[in-house]
Amino acid sequence: VSRLEHEIREQPEALARLLADERGQIAALARALAGRGAGSVMIAARGSSDNAARYAQYLLGERLGLPVALAAPSLESLHGAGAVPGRAGDVVLGISQSGRSPDVVGVLDAARAAGTATVAITNDAGSPLARAAELVVELGVGEERSVAATKTYTGSLAVLAALVAELRDDDADRAAVRRLPAVVAEAVDAAFAAGGFAAAAHVVAVGRGYNLATAMEIALKVRELSGIVAEGFSSADLMHGPIAAVGPETLAVLVAPPGAARPSVLEAADAVRDRGASTLEIGEGAELPLPPGVPEWLSPVAAVVPGQVLALRLAALAGRDADAPAGLSKVTETR
Amino acid sequence: VSRLEHEIREQPEALARLLADERGQIAALARALAGRGAGSVMIAARGSSDNAARYAQYLLGERLGLPVALAAPSLESLHGAGAVPGRAGDVVLGISQSGRSPDVVGVLDAARAAGTATVAITNDAGSPLARAAELVVELGVGEERSVAATKTYTGSLAVLAALVAELRDDDADRAAVRRLPAVVAEAVDAAFAAGGFAAAAHVVAVGRGYNLATAMEIALKVRELSGIVAEGFSSADLMHGPIAAVGPETLAVLVAPPGAARPSVLEAADAVRDRGASTLEIGEGAELPLPPGVPEWLSPVAAVVPGQVLALRLAALAGRDADAPAGLSKVTETR
Repeated sequence: VSRLEHEIREQPEALARLLADERGQIAALARALAGRGAGSVMIAARGSSDNAARYAQYLLGERLGLPVALAAPSLESLHGAGAVPGRAGDVVLGISQSGRSPDVVGVLDAARAAGTATVAITNDAGSPLARAAELVVELGVGEERSVAATKTYTGSLAVLAALVAELRDDDADRAAVRRLPAVVAEAVDAAFAAGGFAAAAHVVAVGRGYNLATAMEIALKVRELSGIVAEGFSSADLMHGPIAAVGPETLAVLVAPPGAARPSVLEAADAVRDRGASTLEIGEGAELPLPPGVPEWLSPVAAVVPGQVLALRLAALAGRDADAPAGLSKVTETR
Repeated sequence: VSRLEHEIREQPEALARLLADERGQIAALARALAGRGAGSVMIAARGSSDNAARYAQYLLGERLGLPVALAAPSLESLHGAGAVPGRAGDVVLGISQSGRSPDVVGVLDAARAAGTATVAITNDAGSPLARAAELVVELGVGEERSVAATKTYTGSLAVLAALVAELRDDDADRAAVRRLPAVVAEAVDAAFAAGGFAAAAHVVAVGRGYNLATAMEIALKVRELSGIVAEGFSSADLMHGPIAAVGPETLAVLVAPPGAARPSVLEAADAVRDRGASTLEIGEGAELPLPPGVPEWLSPVAAVVPGQVLALRLAALAGRDADAPAGLSKVTETR
């Protein structure tokens, strides 16, 4: 068994540990943020963590009505722009499993210089990112040895979801978050039991709303592990031009759990099938099945799992070593 | 000559007309925004206009120190989240050539409901987007008949640049903006004179900072017109995993005009060449040459032009009609 498969299977246990161990820290963070009043949020991240940031944009937007900006870290690293929110109640959040991307740290440094509250979510509490932030939530999912992030990605999503449940002070939300380890365990079992994966020359993962993050993360996993050109799209953006490059050689992965975004994804599915693409659906009762009864705002934590397994399968079909993706390293220090 | 080629060649004249006709409106908009004090900005857009929004994120960030959020329009259209900035000095901007994308209009509607200042940049002053906004800048570049946006894209960039020159109240900036039509005329001539375009199975356009927008817009043009899988990346993001799918079948288009971002793009160029990709550089003295002496903050207006011509050439090599991209329509009404 590859390290990657081990870490995919380890996710339920890692999430359970994280939610137990970090409960106090997440509640303290929620109290600190609530005391500042509602402002705007900017999130700095790269790679898989940037997909977690995309989830946070929907989560904080839909559940709390907060406007969220995804930072352009190059503004600070190339230009020293200081283009960060700086009013009362504003928060700048950095997400990085390693905590070692200098340009992400640079956004938090700019925020501190502006007097803005800074928060880090990282798997390394001793990292430069953790040191740059006033408040730190450690993922605590254990060392991630695969180059491809899996448990740190779902861990970041779970931290964000738990934080929002606390900020809303909603017991139904808290209970739904507590069910995540069991939900993800079901998703892992179902994904490894699924068959019928076939090689593809081009993969397009399609989601919308909450699961745009899932589509982008699945595309990144497939790409890193298999070397296949794989892209994630919002079903809305796909129709604004990019669908022109979808054809019979394309496998479209449809991230379509129940919820407000599903009709739009299914409409895009019809459009890509009209162009000859094959499709593979992630959803309740679909080819890649998800556990029933998960609310849309939590669905990304489970919906990414069949995509992680798909990436593993496509890597095997391509004869690639999932633990050693060609030319990639675990920590990418972009400046 | 295709309508598309005609519109690419028409850009210098369209920009000159736009900068003359809209000067008063842009100055009035600058006065209205300056009177509100510095807040944060959210921009809603889809397709090419979303690439213009990406330029605005760097432009307003670097030149004015303003934090800019690119809206997730689905938050309003799917969830009615009201997740827009709502404090004094905040502005919500919609960019759309047609002004007819319901989900972009929805973000402006949410902003008006929150009492936030709203601005539209559109080529149709009678469109729903223009009606939804308090302040409108019309592109006035004439009807764009090609499905692929060219003069409305460079027009949107020029409006943003002229607005920032007014907000900075800087005569050197104003003079640099006035030179844009001449600069773009040089870029058009040089691009149509360039040769050596060869078909590719996969195109990756790479930029960073200001020209991340250019890379994304070039990728979209190539994709729409030729049907080739073409993707735009920040050179920083490319190294965080996506480079795994770059190989000998990839043509990497390097957007590398002089400036702070150039070293990072050239570093990525070395990395993609190491994986066997061929490269084509856009820059001063490069294969696809740019006029000298253009400041980095204005370079995207010129740097996209050789990419537009590349897309036209790749469409011809693929036997496609540039005026009728398969399955696309001029107005995409995503809800």
